[in-house]
Amino acid sequence: MKIELEQAADFLRENDDYLILMHANPDGDTLGCGFSLCGALQRMGKRARAVCPDHIPARFDYLREAVEEQQFEPQNIVCVDVADSRLLGELKELGDKAELCIDHHISNLDYAKRTLLRANYAAAAELVFEVIKALGVQIDRALANCLYTGIATDTGCFKFSNTKAQTHRYAAELMELGAECGKINYLHFDLKTKGRLALEQHIYKGMKFFEGGKIALVCLTLDDMSRLVDIDSDDVSSIASIPRQIEGVEIGISFKEKKNGVFKASLRSGEKINSALIAQKFGGGGHDRAAGCSFDCGYEKAEELLIAECVKALREAGLE
Amino acid sequence: MKIELEQAADFLRENDDYLILMHANPDGDTLGCGFSLCGALQRMGKRARAVCPDHIPARFDYLREAVEEQQFEPQNIVCVDVADSRLLGELKELGDKAELCIDHHISNLDYAKRTLLRANYAAAAELVFEVIKALGVQIDRALANCLYTGIATDTGCFKFSNTKAQTHRYAAELMELGAECGKINYLHFDLKTKGRLALEQHIYKGMKFFEGGKIALVCLTLDDMSRLVDIDSDDVSSIASIPRQIEGVEIGISFKEKKNGVFKASLRSGEKINSALIAQKFGGGGHDRAAGCSFDCGYEKAEELLIAECVKALREAGLE
Repeated sequence: MKIELEQAADFLRENDDYLILMHANPDGDTLGCGFSLCGALQRMGKRARAVCPDHIPARFDYLREAVEEQQFEPQNIVCVDVADSRLLGELKELGDKAELCIDHHISNLDYAKRTLLRANYAAAAELVFEVIKALGVQIDRALANCLYTGIATDTGCFKFSNTKAQTHRYAAELMELGAECGKINYLHFDLKTKGRLALEQHIYKGMKFFEGGKIALVCLTLDDMSRLVDIDSDDVSSIASIPRQIEGVEIGISFKEKKNGVFKASLRSGEKINSALIAQKFGGGGHDRAAGCSFDCGYEKAEELLIAECVKALREAGLE
Repeated sequence: MKIELEQAADFLRENDDYLILMHANPDGDTLGCGFSLCGALQRMGKRARAVCPDHIPARFDYLREAVEEQQFEPQNIVCVDVADSRLLGELKELGDKAELCIDHHISNLDYAKRTLLRANYAAAAELVFEVIKALGVQIDRALANCLYTGIATDTGCFKFSNTKAQTHRYAAELMELGAECGKINYLHFDLKTKGRLALEQHIYKGMKFFEGGKIALVCLTLDDMSRLVDIDSDDVSSIASIPRQIEGVEIGISFKEKKNGVFKASLRSGEKINSALIAQKFGGGGHDRAAGCSFDCGYEKAEELLIAECVKALREAGLE
């Protein structure tokens, strides 16, 4: 059931012993939401614990400063930034019993008893910020760091087009509340692991161009991944955006081998090409500018088929 | 002479026929300031022209939409984001006759008859935004695009630690005034020229590590630059930040050959190492986290000398 901000705040005020669930394959938004909400409830004198089904990368360690470890029997489950309980991995069954979900995904399945949704927000952390303010909790540096992390990471440091005027205003507020933005931005947007560096070199070295540079393609096989140590899922998923960043490229393609011989293609395109229409030809889908599809016909054939469709799309758009 | 915002606005209101000067080797801030101020004065019914001593890279073409070409004999010179008239290249003599300078550099030499300075602002465009508002000009999309460009480019898209709460608030306002932030961010922070791509591959391939990865070093020779076509000065200057971005690196060094056998070293360091102290050993200087010095003893010797000082600095900081 969809609820409003004050109802969510009332629910949190009236209950206790919260287990806060963050989604699998965690990003800065779900973690920032989880730890800030947990810390805020603890500051109200309540018991709360934030858990994630997957390992939390070390660069997010500082988020834990917002909370203290508490042992208790959870009574109320809250999900943050979780559109679907299946995104909770091994915690799915707990997620299905959620009393409250706070989220910003338009695809939210309304699986929780109560859902507070703002589908136009760039980050769920913007909404959790509003909830914490509605609860009347004084926001200190540690909480501000969590909330800023959610907002900054979900917007690519205010670079992506999901960034709104409100996003900037909330960042300004959090900065004034003590968020250590310089330090946080360095960790998430500057720092490169050696694994990431090796991955990028591999990707750039193997990049192929078609149609006079209008299509760029990269590929990452299971074999590549076994040789590239010290890379995490974030690193791998971020390669999808690399080919489209090259000047002159209208369609960027990244192939990733999912299991032996099965390749997932991610498509990224400019304003003149509809990625989703191309992906649909192969049973996939997505958005106008970002879409994906899968192939189990072996790599060479997959590349040939997909490039042929992309060339057709360029032709139809008058971009030959 | 230092003046305040209202005095700058009064001067601009009371006069006409402005020549606005932007600094050599132009960046988004000086260009955003120049074209927005020029456009604003034109919207007040005045004559104005913005000029730059150097070529303006094509990715800034859209800034010109804020102005119209006007032919007239200039009567009043205004410099924007220009700390020193020597930064005007061949326009230096005109700069020395400036009636007004609007700037945010603490190093501003107060060379103009009137200087409006806000040394704590991240971008001069924040200050020009205030000036245009004080002039009562209605800010349309084209002007907002210029001002947003100045703010976003001088802060690395809100990533650098010069970003303040006000910076985010002004970005929010400009977004509401129609600034096409997604498009602008793509141009300046995502798009990679093929030259830039080749340069990065060259840099990463040649990167050397010392002291177990605590020092990283890259080098760009005149010979490299002659082989790497399609790179601009922005590309070359940006390599200074690359080595420090690698995980575990406390001191990042980039060497650039300035003329045959003369190498300029740029140093970047984390919180525990003072770059300026190292650069001073070789007659250079700078800030705690970013400094530079020059060597004319040939590359091998320069590298040896500088690495030895860096190792010493690591030792003194207890980072061995």
